[in-house]
Amino acid sequence: MVRAPQPDDRFSFGLWTVGWLGVDPFGTASRPALAPEEYAGRLAELGAWGVTFHDNDVFDFGADESARAKAAQSFKQACDTAGLVIEMVTTNTFTHPVFKDGGLTSNDRSVRRFGLRKVLRAVDLAAEMGASTFVMWGGREGSEYDGSKDLHAAFDRYREGLDTVAGYIKSQGYGLRIGLEPKPNEPRGDIFLPTVGHALALIAELEHGDIVGLNPETGHEQMAGLNYTHALGQALWSGKLFHIDLNGQRGIKFDQDLVFGHGDLMSAFFTVDLLENGFPSRPDGPRYDGPRHFDYKPSRTEHMAGVWESAKANMATYLMLAEKARAFRADSRVTEAMAYAGLPELAEPTMAPGESVSDLLAGDDGFDPDVAAERDFGFVRLQQLALEHLIG
Amino acid sequence: MVRAPQPDDRFSFGLWTVGWLGVDPFGTASRPALAPEEYAGRLAELGAWGVTFHDNDVFDFGADESARAKAAQSFKQACDTAGLVIEMVTTNTFTHPVFKDGGLTSNDRSVRRFGLRKVLRAVDLAAEMGASTFVMWGGREGSEYDGSKDLHAAFDRYREGLDTVAGYIKSQGYGLRIGLEPKPNEPRGDIFLPTVGHALALIAELEHGDIVGLNPETGHEQMAGLNYTHALGQALWSGKLFHIDLNGQRGIKFDQDLVFGHGDLMSAFFTVDLLENGFPSRPDGPRYDGPRHFDYKPSRTEHMAGVWESAKANMATYLMLAEKARAFRADSRVTEAMAYAGLPELAEPTMAPGESVSDLLAGDDGFDPDVAAERDFGFVRLQQLALEHLIG
Amino acid sequence: MVRAPQPDDRFSFGLWTVGWLGVDPFGTASRPALAPEEYAGRLAELGAWGVTFHDNDVFDFGADESARAKAAQSFKQACDTAGLVIEMVTTNTFTHPVFKDGGLTSNDRSVRRFGLRKVLRAVDLAAEMGASTFVMWGGREGSEYDGSKDLHAAFDRYREGLDTVAGYIKSQGYGLRIGLEPKPNEPRGDIFLPTVGHALALIAELEHGDIVGLNPETGHEQMAGLNYTHALGQALWSGKLFHIDLNGQRGIKFDQDLVFGHGDLMSAFFTVDLLENGFPSRPDGPRYDGPRHFDYKPSRTEHMAGVWESAKANMATYLMLAEKARAFRADSRVTEAMAYAGLPELAEPTMAPGESVSDLLAGDDGFDPDVAAERDFGFVRLQQLALEHLIG
Amino acid sequence: MVRAPQPDDRFSFGLWTVGWLGVDPFGTASRPALAPEEYAGRLAELGAWGVTFHDNDVFDFGADESARAKAAQSFKQACDTAGLVIEMVTTNTFTHPVFKDGGLTSNDRSVRRFGLRKVLRAVDLAAEMGASTFVMWGGREGSEYDGSKDLHAAFDRYREGLDTVAGYIKSQGYGLRIGLEPKPNEPRGDIFLPTVGHALALIAELEHGDIVGLNPETGHEQMAGLNYTHALGQALWSGKLFHIDLNGQRGIKFDQDLVFGHGDLMSAFFTVDLLENGFPSRPDGPRYDGPRHFDYKPSRTEHMAGVWESAKANMATYLMLAEKARAFRADSRVTEAMAYAGLPELAEPTMAPGESVSDLLAGDDGFDPDVAAERDFGFVRLQQLALEHLIG
Repeated sequence: MVRAPQPDDRFSFGLWTVGWLGVDPFGTASRPALAPEEYAGRLAELGAWGVTFHDNDVFDFGADESARAKAAQSFKQACDTAGLVIEMVTTNTFTHPVFKDGGLTSNDRSVRRFGLRKVLRAVDLAAEMGASTFVMWGGREGSEYDGSKDLHAAFDRYREGLDTVAGYIKSQGYGLRIGLEPKPNEPRGDIFLPTVGHALALIAELEHGDIVGLNPETGHEQMAGLNYTHALGQALWSGKLFHIDLNGQRGIKFDQDLVFGHGDLMSAFFTVDLLENGFPSRPDGPRYDGPRHFDYKPSRTEHMAGVWESAKANMATYLMLAEKARAFRADSRVTEAMAYAGLPELAEPTMAPGESVSDLLAGDDGFDPDVAAERDFGFVRLQQLALEHLIG
Repeated sequence: MVRAPQPDDRFSFGLWTVGWLGVDPFGTASRPALAPEEYAGRLAELGAWGVTFHDNDVFDFGADESARAKAAQSFKQACDTAGLVIEMVTTNTFTHPVFKDGGLTSNDRSVRRFGLRKVLRAVDLAAEMGASTFVMWGGREGSEYDGSKDLHAAFDRYREGLDTVAGYIKSQGYGLRIGLEPKPNEPRGDIFLPTVGHALALIAELEHGDIVGLNPETGHEQMAGLNYTHALGQALWSGKLFHIDLNGQRGIKFDQDLVFGHGDLMSAFFTVDLLENGFPSRPDGPRYDGPRHFDYKPSRTEHMAGVWESAKANMATYLMLAEKARAFRADSRVTEAMAYAGLPELAEPTMAPGESVSDLLAGDDGFDPDVAAERDFGFVRLQQLALEHLIG
Repeated sequence: MVRAPQPDDRFSFGLWTVGWLGVDPFGTASRPALAPEEYAGRLAELGAWGVTFHDNDVFDFGADESARAKAAQSFKQACDTAGLVIEMVTTNTFTHPVFKDGGLTSNDRSVRRFGLRKVLRAVDLAAEMGASTFVMWGGREGSEYDGSKDLHAAFDRYREGLDTVAGYIKSQGYGLRIGLEPKPNEPRGDIFLPTVGHALALIAELEHGDIVGLNPETGHEQMAGLNYTHALGQALWSGKLFHIDLNGQRGIKFDQDLVFGHGDLMSAFFTVDLLENGFPSRPDGPRYDGPRHFDYKPSRTEHMAGVWESAKANMATYLMLAEKARAFRADSRVTEAMAYAGLPELAEPTMAPGESVSDLLAGDDGFDPDVAAERDFGFVRLQQLALEHLIG
Repeated sequence: MVRAPQPDDRFSFGLWTVGWLGVDPFGTASRPALAPEEYAGRLAELGAWGVTFHDNDVFDFGADESARAKAAQSFKQACDTAGLVIEMVTTNTFTHPVFKDGGLTSNDRSVRRFGLRKVLRAVDLAAEMGASTFVMWGGREGSEYDGSKDLHAAFDRYREGLDTVAGYIKSQGYGLRIGLEPKPNEPRGDIFLPTVGHALALIAELEHGDIVGLNPETGHEQMAGLNYTHALGQALWSGKLFHIDLNGQRGIKFDQDLVFGHGDLMSAFFTVDLLENGFPSRPDGPRYDGPRHFDYKPSRTEHMAGVWESAKANMATYLMLAEKARAFRADSRVTEAMAYAGLPELAEPTMAPGESVSDLLAGDDGFDPDVAAERDFGFVRLQQLALEHLIG
């Protein structure tokens, strides 16, 4: 039996996760809405450490200053009481139809100005709530038709928007970093930052890119058929893994937002292994030290009991995988198999210390490719060892 | 009837395209091999301007110095005679089993050293052949199992390899730029630079990244369900569209390498529109001015007649699409529809000149989101205009 | 310029198509709702011949007998006045949360009984409206988790439900045929009849399968990466192509419901070619003679102007493709290329008339596989001819 | 530690699995070829019960009668000696270029006649070897371009071919059943029987369909994004699950043929659960009682050590999953959760015994949909229980 989650585990949940009512493209709500405070209270009871939200998860899109302030205050207070950290805040620039062509990259400049204001105000809110991360998911930034966007202008506007927000954070002295959340499609036919790679590439073009990083979501990368753990690896290697959205997805299809581990389980194992244990050859290398944040949806078939069961399932699965990943790394058979597979060898530079290209080209190390080709890497055995740890 | 291709069109073909014998995972060759010189001669007759090749398209993997030199010389001479430019050269680091775990990121350091030497020697060859681009497709750099790679080490080695090659190009004073070619999978389960975005992100971490850019392939992006024209747009915007590989792909599946236009035709139209006409709002903006390079395979069902028919089809389709794209841009209904859709408006900065964030936040422009939400963008009509130009 | 659509073209639209308000998984309505009668009137003006609807497109889920009757009457009258045929009616067993685990295969028997009643009453409605087809899309019949369904029981219940409905149609003497609409996923993680093949297979197990056939939707097959024209071909060959849903989809992702032709255009060309011209070698063979029915969604970025533009675009594209397909078939170069490719030869039985297996095995026809392997099928050239007709 | 496999487990392997040399679309062999007898001997040592092969796994495509007979004899003898059952035999109608447009549906009639003869002779071979299943994978039956096939003729020829083969089996009194193996694509752009559904649908049109069933392969269904366990369920329900190809696939991409369990692990668990334990509500219902046959490829990175390790991994994983699946079914919490989820309820007919449609329509069971919609199905909790059994 898996142990109960504790604050130390730093599990956090989006309010919109347990708060999802089950509205999907073909169906209306299957569950009643609770007050934000109630969701937060229940999450704390279940062992969560943190909570996150979109501005409009807590107050209405059209709320005036005083309604906003009151709702935010009340929610913050409830979190404090429950002992929950508000670790991340984000803006909703996708639900209201004004954002139907995007917030920062809408073809309509007046919408972009409105969107930018909404984002900036949510930044203030994030700071006020004590959050350390401000996530930006540009789900409506994109197109269905190639002709409907000037791509150069779109990237210019995306950069302008992000730099404006990041510059504002700096100018206000907020202790916030931005986490971009890529997604390949849905709701737009093609979204502008479809993968972790594209977002990293845009960040490299920013003026204030130093405080802009990634918030990769399991299912979003997998919707493009990509390897989530590889994406985390590249983001970490680039110093840009600022936050994380864990969930489950069963292949290339609509965004399922299943419980973490209820999608590709073997991939989830290696995700947790990377998050908990870091890169095998870099014990003191870059590590993710942010919250273990779940961005999932309780299936529409479930009523309130299922909401809480599914929330628990995310944490329980993570804890089980973490334990298994630790045992995997500690197993001497695994260490041997990793050595056999050449993992530590990959950490050695290809060039010798001080070696020049001319040096390299001067000889051939007596290398015989036909002989070298016979090396057995033992990758399958290593994978089977992982599987045995996972299900053994 | 479409006009014949001319050298001015700058169409080029990989030797391995018309030279593909039809070997696939389940079948042996369906066509005989011709000499490289013969392929080149026929391509020139068909109207191609350039040709490209992997080292081992022209000489064997195990060829000694003199055999290499003789084969390269002979091929270069044949191209000169035929009036063909050798515009790009690349290395084969994927066919021989020594590269089964990669060339630059193999877990086996001796293989990496061998691979790096092979790449460097191909750089010399490229310079000698007068090429301007050196493509690097890391098709074997990747994994099937997450446990078989230390990802941090893998990205370190990839960077080391690329910087070594780029540094060498600079040190030798070669007029070459490197074009990275991303691909999501096949032959590896997951390839390390799966998309244009990931490659741009890696380039941003290089010491010699200024001469490293992209060689995006139509089908490779589409194998991840991504929008190829968007990828070209981001690469161009980042100043990194150094070369292209045009072909056709019918959705997310194995790499089909169909004739350009025999995959997603509407996408091909907008690709050509971008290549020929640039970004709508930036007539003097960044443009791709490299070769129109085809990386396709004549279907295995075809014998030699089909090889040449398919080569011609690539060029004919491109020319037809180019003509249609020009007419599309020149049509005043299109200009109006673009204005209606707000395309030019996206080129306007969101912030006014000199406007500060405080200025922006001070007012609300009298903006009513509910009213603004009623804007009809006319994207579908614009798409239908494109379709009418395409098939009209 | 394409000619205006006419009733003879037998174009029909679902009420829910132009009536889609733009609610998607991440956004609320972007357009106002019109009365069903108004949609119908506008469709007639645009040249549509027919209209189709779900029961709850015309009256509310909870409507009582008199409200139902009144709404249906009023709608029928409006259609009559507009000269629109109500060619198909279907039931909504997916929007209300009671159907969250399906209508005919919900694990909850009371729901199944309620669902079956709802379907049967919609059958009465269909007959009353004068429809000839009753479509059943089991979008909620499926699961997210393999453990949540007893698959044997699920197929038993699906069969029971379909046979009950088909038997009822017969017992009432209604002139209706059932069209099953497959879909691989969305809203369920996996839907029970994911493709045309699976639905044909289920029909083969029915008692009343003679009046049960298919209503294949372009995008649904393409969401599984399958070839829509092949699906239509197999359905026609099996005598089961009872109705169709034409639209557009850009690859394997969420259900896009784009305008017909705004997805895979080349595939749309061959779809229309099959619908209009039948199988090449069977001029008098099985043909689809039902309505050309569009099941698409006007993009959420469009307001009412875009709704009507998109409706027109479906019909205009179909008409253009039909004209091109006719010219394609009439072109003697195409006839020659088809002969060269062996298309007519495929219509010849492999066995000679009266030939037994022993006869076949007795000789070898003097066949040399190595020589035969050199045949050039000319498929690429034939495809290029199609492309030239399509965009020429 | 998992117990060693035993003959009773009835594990079997294709000769072409351990015998795969690592040739892929971009690389040549990475391993030497052993004699068929040696593969068989090693498989027996590892605990396999059976072996299967294509004709040309044992003798060359061009082998004459005596070479064929000698090779077959020798192989049979080796299997007998090793105690291995030859449970299935199949024909290779895909490697030689003569089959580049298919064997049974090639546009070239002379090829079809040759292909049919080759299949029929392999049927004789299968009978001679004592096999009980004859698999037919039509990997080359398909097209890249919609215009290259007359679909009606293609299905006619497919039916003719299958009925000829099935008729021959009956006429010879062979104790063989045919297992069709669907695949969506690769090597052809679109294959004619892309899924289990399409194959079941074709079988329903055969004259001798009673001895024709399915041989579904894990990865093939998953290459279309479909649920393999659902496919097995429908095939079993239709009485057509004759044989099975177990392996692993990581999503929609090229055919990976990984070790069973090294793809979608959760899906593999439910596959084994169905194979070992049958349908939950039908303890005496239809069960699969054929061999547990693996159709996988040892990764190209592995040398001979990895070949045997990977073969063992398939069996070990299956045995572990079987044990877990038994414990899952035996767990009273699972029984309760299944009841809570309504699984047993789905086995109850929707109509009461003797109830007519009029009876059903006469009342409403006092059913309130809004109340019923509040049912919590507990599917997520049931899935979490499965996950706990799988990895606990």
